[in-house]
Amino acid sequence: MSEWVTINEVGPRDGLQSLGKVLTVEQRLQLIQGLVDCGIAAIESTSFVSAKAVPQMAGATELYRQLPNVANVRYAALVPNLRGYNDAVAAGARTVNVVLSVTDTMNLKNINMSLEQTAQVCSDIMKQAKADGVNGQAYLAVAFECPFEGAVSTDVVTEFAKQMYSAGAQKIIIADTIGAANPARVITLLTQIAKVLPLSQVACHFHDTRGMALANVYAALQCGVREFDTAIGGMGGCPFSPGASGNMATEDAVLMLEQMGYKTGISLHELTAVIGTVEGLVERKLGGHSYNWLKRQYLQNNEQGAHCG
Amino acid sequence: MSEWVTINEVGPRDGLQSLGKVLTVEQRLQLIQGLVDCGIAAIESTSFVSAKAVPQMAGATELYRQLPNVANVRYAALVPNLRGYNDAVAAGARTVNVVLSVTDTMNLKNINMSLEQTAQVCSDIMKQAKADGVNGQAYLAVAFECPFEGAVSTDVVTEFAKQMYSAGAQKIIIADTIGAANPARVITLLTQIAKVLPLSQVACHFHDTRGMALANVYAALQCGVREFDTAIGGMGGCPFSPGASGNMATEDAVLMLEQMGYKTGISLHELTAVIGTVEGLVERKLGGHSYNWLKRQYLQNNEQGAHCG
Repeated sequence: MSEWVTINEVGPRDGLQSLGKVLTVEQRLQLIQGLVDCGIAAIESTSFVSAKAVPQMAGATELYRQLPNVANVRYAALVPNLRGYNDAVAAGARTVNVVLSVTDTMNLKNINMSLEQTAQVCSDIMKQAKADGVNGQAYLAVAFECPFEGAVSTDVVTEFAKQMYSAGAQKIIIADTIGAANPARVITLLTQIAKVLPLSQVACHFHDTRGMALANVYAALQCGVREFDTAIGGMGGCPFSPGASGNMATEDAVLMLEQMGYKTGISLHELTAVIGTVEGLVERKLGGHSYNWLKRQYLQNNEQGAHCG
Repeated sequence: MSEWVTINEVGPRDGLQSLGKVLTVEQRLQLIQGLVDCGIAAIESTSFVSAKAVPQMAGATELYRQLPNVANVRYAALVPNLRGYNDAVAAGARTVNVVLSVTDTMNLKNINMSLEQTAQVCSDIMKQAKADGVNGQAYLAVAFECPFEGAVSTDVVTEFAKQMYSAGAQKIIIADTIGAANPARVITLLTQIAKVLPLSQVACHFHDTRGMALANVYAALQCGVREFDTAIGGMGGCPFSPGASGNMATEDAVLMLEQMGYKTGISLHELTAVIGTVEGLVERKLGGHSYNWLKRQYLQNNEQGAHCG
């Protein structure tokens, strides 16, 4: 089996935004360079928002102009509104992400807008991106469960997937914001979505809050999904469940994919090494479930003769 | 979906044996009672070995005579040889486990016997158990990868599964001793084994060394396996990969199974609470990937209104 799976690294945006520490533009570029050097070819690099609201993302234009290896890496910019979209495109962004939480309460609590309003804004941005020849990607957040409204119906998610796709989104990302999905629900939802758009244009963003992220990736792979969001070292927790895991660790996903025979283009050795570098930058211990094993496998001399692997 | 899945709790034997601390018989019974109170109905309670070799398992006969709720819980005893088998049966054991590592080097390094010798001993015990009306279960260890010999062929594992089954084993447990399996390999191996014995008589023992235990459980479920070994709080590491995970945490497996609609008969609330009790007994922090979320879900008052659940 030698099918390709795209790992979309969200550490520089989603991961950093969740952490307290504010990195300079230079530090963020250093982080991104480290990831690119591992072979990562899709990165959510920053968001174009008010620096006052999200200081971790200040200097997005400056960052965008210095991104490394732009010819071979798909860099995406998160944009919350048309103004952010225009700033992103002016800065050179060729791929833009919008986020639509699929329940009213989540939108109201998160960004003080109704579901209908947010859907309209996202739709407008996707249409504009399409018209401008910019790659538009639409996230459907709390796609399995909303922390306020509970379980989300697959009909609702499918309807919004269709809406964003019709508006011109080139990719729909199903985001399990609070890590509530399980493999059976993943299959159910993706099977339904597959009736309204090709799964080659669907990606998944799983959280590991309940420990099921990799199992969910496997279920999604079985359905035909070939792109997943991950964060280096599992950077970025669950804001609704303090102490619990958030983003799935890039190294965990790459390890499983590579061991199953998929191609990611990413070097596990380099990835394992770069986690230490990132830890230094964010001043926090990182590492997914496989990190200890990966360090032993790739970073230590093993003199016993016995080894796992 | 309301199919039953059996969780076989190995904390009291496999888990404890990996930890340094030696618990008294009374403490081990306290641990077991706590697990039984959660609804766990299959437990690997102890092993019948020399107390000098394995002090954590001393007093096995005394323990067996005081096991709680024997009418409703399937208690198993690990036995390394016919002497241990006889001691176990004399103590009242109705289910016995043997372990056959499927490579020569693993047997030689582990117990100083060849593969052929160990297979013979295990086979003899299975035959004796069958003759005595005792439930015999055979573990096939390093079933995916041996720390010394590398990847293990599915033909070899299948051959030994057939051999143990023919000798009278009522259950064959496929044990991924160093956590090297991935979902694709799980499917390949189980599909082959299904040709020589019914998968209703096969269980899986996955380790989480590389983070894939739950994904592997899901793959095995898809094949028709309905029994899994787990350890409360993920007790017991990987001796070949210090610092890395070993046993899959009972709470992680039960959470996924229950969320997918399977019945385990186990209360997640009680399970979450008992982890704290076990931590007190073994004097070590425990908890699988879902533990933080479980604690928040079941053990804390959540006053914000917002919750992940």
